[in-house]
Amino acid sequence: MIYLDNSATTRPLPEAAEAVYTMLTDNFGNPSSFHRAGLDANAALRAAREAVAAALSAEPEEIFFTSGGTEANNLAIFGAAAANRRKGKRIVTTAIEHESVLEAVNELEKQGFEVVRLMPDVQGNIAEEQLTEAITPDTVLVTVMYVNNEVGSVLPVQAIRKAVRRAGAPALVHIDCVQAFGKLPVKPKKLGADLVTVTAHKVHGPKGVGALYVRKGVRIVPRQYGGAQENKLRPGTEASPLIAGFGKAVALLPDDKEQAQQMRALNAYAREQLTAIDGIKLNSGEAASDYIVNLYVPSFMTSQTLVQHLSSQYGICLSSGSACAKGKKSHVLTAMHLPDKVIEHSVRVSFSRFNTKEDIDALADALRETVKEYPL
Amino acid sequence: MIYLDNSATTRPLPEAAEAVYTMLTDNFGNPSSFHRAGLDANAALRAAREAVAAALSAEPEEIFFTSGGTEANNLAIFGAAAANRRKGKRIVTTAIEHESVLEAVNELEKQGFEVVRLMPDVQGNIAEEQLTEAITPDTVLVTVMYVNNEVGSVLPVQAIRKAVRRAGAPALVHIDCVQAFGKLPVKPKKLGADLVTVTAHKVHGPKGVGALYVRKGVRIVPRQYGGAQENKLRPGTEASPLIAGFGKAVALLPDDKEQAQQMRALNAYAREQLTAIDGIKLNSGEAASDYIVNLYVPSFMTSQTLVQHLSSQYGICLSSGSACAKGKKSHVLTAMHLPDKVIEHSVRVSFSRFNTKEDIDALADALRETVKEYPL
Repeated sequence: MIYLDNSATTRPLPEAAEAVYTMLTDNFGNPSSFHRAGLDANAALRAAREAVAAALSAEPEEIFFTSGGTEANNLAIFGAAAANRRKGKRIVTTAIEHESVLEAVNELEKQGFEVVRLMPDVQGNIAEEQLTEAITPDTVLVTVMYVNNEVGSVLPVQAIRKAVRRAGAPALVHIDCVQAFGKLPVKPKKLGADLVTVTAHKVHGPKGVGALYVRKGVRIVPRQYGGAQENKLRPGTEASPLIAGFGKAVALLPDDKEQAQQMRALNAYAREQLTAIDGIKLNSGEAASDYIVNLYVPSFMTSQTLVQHLSSQYGICLSSGSACAKGKKSHVLTAMHLPDKVIEHSVRVSFSRFNTKEDIDALADALRETVKEYPL
Repeated sequence: MIYLDNSATTRPLPEAAEAVYTMLTDNFGNPSSFHRAGLDANAALRAAREAVAAALSAEPEEIFFTSGGTEANNLAIFGAAAANRRKGKRIVTTAIEHESVLEAVNELEKQGFEVVRLMPDVQGNIAEEQLTEAITPDTVLVTVMYVNNEVGSVLPVQAIRKAVRRAGAPALVHIDCVQAFGKLPVKPKKLGADLVTVTAHKVHGPKGVGALYVRKGVRIVPRQYGGAQENKLRPGTEASPLIAGFGKAVALLPDDKEQAQQMRALNAYAREQLTAIDGIKLNSGEAASDYIVNLYVPSFMTSQTLVQHLSSQYGICLSSGSACAKGKKSHVLTAMHLPDKVIEHSVRVSFSRFNTKEDIDALADALRETVKEYPL
């Protein structure tokens, strides 16, 4: 299998899988219990929290574990909106956010919030001025992703804090860093973020666990009520096996700069090989993340069929867009004003640090054959 | 280690731990992806859903996986209240529910719902008539646990449906079966439930996954927004490793009746051995679940100290109440109107099917020594 769908999910590191397993077999106590079994589980939880905090240059108390990116995004958005409800009703976001942001914001709009959705250019970019101009004194929440999950565009999230300050807005700043974490430096303080979402299964950790960074001093309203876990912001028995696996995966993230260089080269090679195929065009812009290449494939097969064809005929796994959107027309490519014909015949290739040039060669060969045998 | 805190969490079955591990190493695809890796993960998800459905005599489409009991309870309660908001504002519950029910209902009360909290008798029992009399034509939600997590009292949840019908109430019936599942028959249809909460880590599955049963045709409002997973009621990439482990643990649940007999004998032995110790008194009533014995220990050590003492001196793990309440005075024993002195010196022993008479002997010896060496 040649796995090129790393923005959907990644293969867990063996060490992360072991960490999960060990918690299940040897350290199964409830982290809230006061006996030995509980204290041991709690120690593992604390170590994982410290690992995630360190990766974000944050304090352990600023890390709140959730069941994943979707929950963290929902908690951030509903939690911030509820906390700021009396201060204004304007929410600034973009039209190319992940479903868990889009739909949460849609729900808030139904509840009376006013939502501004910034439109991207044809490569999925959002300009800094668009962001700064949209932020007004009554803006209570700005929620923008760092790296787009479908085309890889990198959004100017660093500009938000200054714009909020300039506008004198009470806004909390939420940055969905699910696709950026482990790839670009994600340091909430440097990004000027109050709230940052990350998740384990995009960085070779297990599915079912993520975290919300909440800057010290920032108060948001919980979405879930119950016990005292996660400082009451996210109660419920902690998923300690997954959290330990998350911590392990994060602790094993490679050196930022070295990895960036390696991925730069891999991306350049991919672009070169793929654009050499007759008729293939890239939807991802030059400035996009090195981890994501969205491309138009001139075959009569539409995206979903193409995904299945590449899987069954070549053992190549890639996707037709966000896994969470399962089969729906891409809202990102639509917002980029790409023609329907392009949207219907585009796929996303997404890399991890474990992909090689050989993977790309195999993909290029498969696509070359496909557009030749099944032309549009 | 002698583990007698199974109502807090259980040791995962080796088979369940293996199932989790295998998903992490060999079946890591995103269940929403259309390629081979995705389809394989989806198949595992489907198998687990069928296993949980079968254990509840329900349809797979009626099972919605969550991150655990707390999330399932919150989803049921907020989801039902929101769905029925226009039909009335009365919620019927008890004073001895789990924190995740208590606090969710408290929050709804702040939002304008009228909450009736039934009080238990001195053994933690709620009478059928209390329940049926409390349900009025404007009741929109009845949320009651099947088995209490601190004293083991078994609540007359089967009476709810009839009372709702008699009152002509629009109420949805939610039963928190976290402590009953795998111990008493939990068949939502027989129980007359619209919504039933279960969780994996109380039945020797992994922490971080549970399920809400939602009866076919019943509509509740989601708490989380995003992708299309779990039929949009609970979006977010599925925690497929944990879900597979949950399915495995459920598939390996033993025969109801055989296990019940075994636990009946174990419980009788425990009661006999423990009450033979000078001054020890049981807070759990005769009719309580065989899996939970709450008892008063006449030592000067208060509950939490006693828990730590038994752990460090004897390797015995038990608890001072709900793990989720971490150190707070028990709201269950308080509602039972036990004197403060009793509440402060009580502990909970909770069994699994893997406990033995030898475990109880060890506990009895430890407690006998403790009350002798550190009397009140």
